Amino acid sequence: MERHFDTSLRELKEQLVTMAGLVEKAIEEATQGLQSADVERFQNVFDLEKKINQCHISVDSACLKLLALQQPLAADLRLIFAIIKINTDLERMGDQAVNIARNAQEYIKAAPLKPLVDLPIMFQEVRQMVGITLDSFVKNNEPLAREVLKRDDRVDALKNKIFKDVLEHLKTHSAQVEQGLTLILIARNLERIGDHATNIAEDVIFALKGEDVRHSAQVSTIKSALK
Amino acid sequence: MERHFDTSLRELKEQLVTMAGLVEKAIEEATQGLQSADVERFQNVFDLEKKINQCHISVDSACLKLLALQQPLAADLRLIFAIIKINTDLERMGDQAVNIARNAQEYIKAAPLKPLVDLPIMFQEVRQMVGITLDSFVKNNEPLAREVLKRDDRVDALKNKIFKDVLEHLKTHSAQVEQGLTLILIARNLERIGDHATNIAEDVIFALKGEDVRHSAQVSTIKSALK
Repeated sequence: MERHFDTSLRELKEQLVTMAGLVEKAIEEATQGLQSADVERFQNVFDLEKKINQCHISVDSACLKLLALQQPLAADLRLIFAIIKINTDLERMGDQAVNIARNAQEYIKAAPLKPLVDLPIMFQEVRQMVGITLDSFVKNNEPLAREVLKRDDRVDALKNKIFKDVLEHLKTHSAQVEQGLTLILIARNLERIGDHATNIAEDVIFALKGEDVRHSAQVSTIKSALK
Repeated sequence: MERHFDTSLRELKEQLVTMAGLVEKAIEEATQGLQSADVERFQNVFDLEKKINQCHISVDSACLKLLALQQPLAADLRLIFAIIKINTDLERMGDQAVNIARNAQEYIKAAPLKPLVDLPIMFQEVRQMVGITLDSFVKNNEPLAREVLKRDDRVDALKNKIFKDVLEHLKTHSAQVEQGLTLILIARNLERIGDHATNIAEDVIFALKGEDVRHSAQVSTIKSALK
């Protein structure tokens, strides 16, 4: 029979996975909404964000209860610690999906920059990165989490290319400066989603291995603290 | 005599306050660096960020140790929970200071947009907001934390005004599109610092009162969980 604590921890993990599913959906709706100029999808993002915010509060509450009532140790404590952090990153990914939807709402009101530069490629890259991140958490899979860390550079490179291409375009199409800026802000929103995915992957590695890979060039003191 | 746990908790708080001081300094150096076109100040920001990252790891490590060894309850647990979150926000404020310094480094290489629009006002507003936030934590002062929440709207309004002014300027000065974009990105970086300050203020209120004021239109379930 499962211990009461194990049941609570399993339920907490399930709650986080549900929340992550809403975040994935919000990112998909925001990016597809821009590509298909479909305003209904933007409304879906705003509705999803409300649910994500409710999960945010509810996951924190569950973490606090577990810490207070069960006083977990070692791997269990590391997992709860990681969930507290992942919860924050998921909520902020939801915020970024809303930012993309709001920017895209403005963008589709005027004539599009032709073409949408590399944004569709960046959409795909970021959605894949988020998918792998959540998979690594669900499956307790460290190699998948490490795969995420490698992909962040690709997302950053795509953002830089989009910045460059848009600026180049605007030099000869100055009337489109607002549209160009909006695309740049969307690329920045996507980059931030990639950053949050990276944070989550680092937390997954910490939960699984007790290894703190953040700021990785620096000496990790956390490793010895809770092995 | 102070209990061992109280000593550890006091030391943890002091560690966070030291980190917060580094973050304040980094924001000051980044913004003053732009205003005075002083590249040495940008280097100071990069150096400060390394120290901030060390603090980030070290504060998390101390929180985990306290949770594992002392199994704190009620107000003590709330404080540690808040510190885990504040630590994340402080580290990301450091990242934003670096972003400002990098953007400013590019900006000062070319002819400035004339004038720097409302950025200096926004610098001052954000620095004040960060100062009040940290004061609210150091002094356990709930009204100060609530003051921060009110100020966030002012920072957002300044960002919107800067966006508008720069876009207006670029319509007749299209050769300055890169410079204009850089100022817009800096305004966005500052807005994010304001968001992190808001997050911290919400965590201070939670630590002091057990009241979850995040997503404030929504029902708080955390309040009942750990009063």
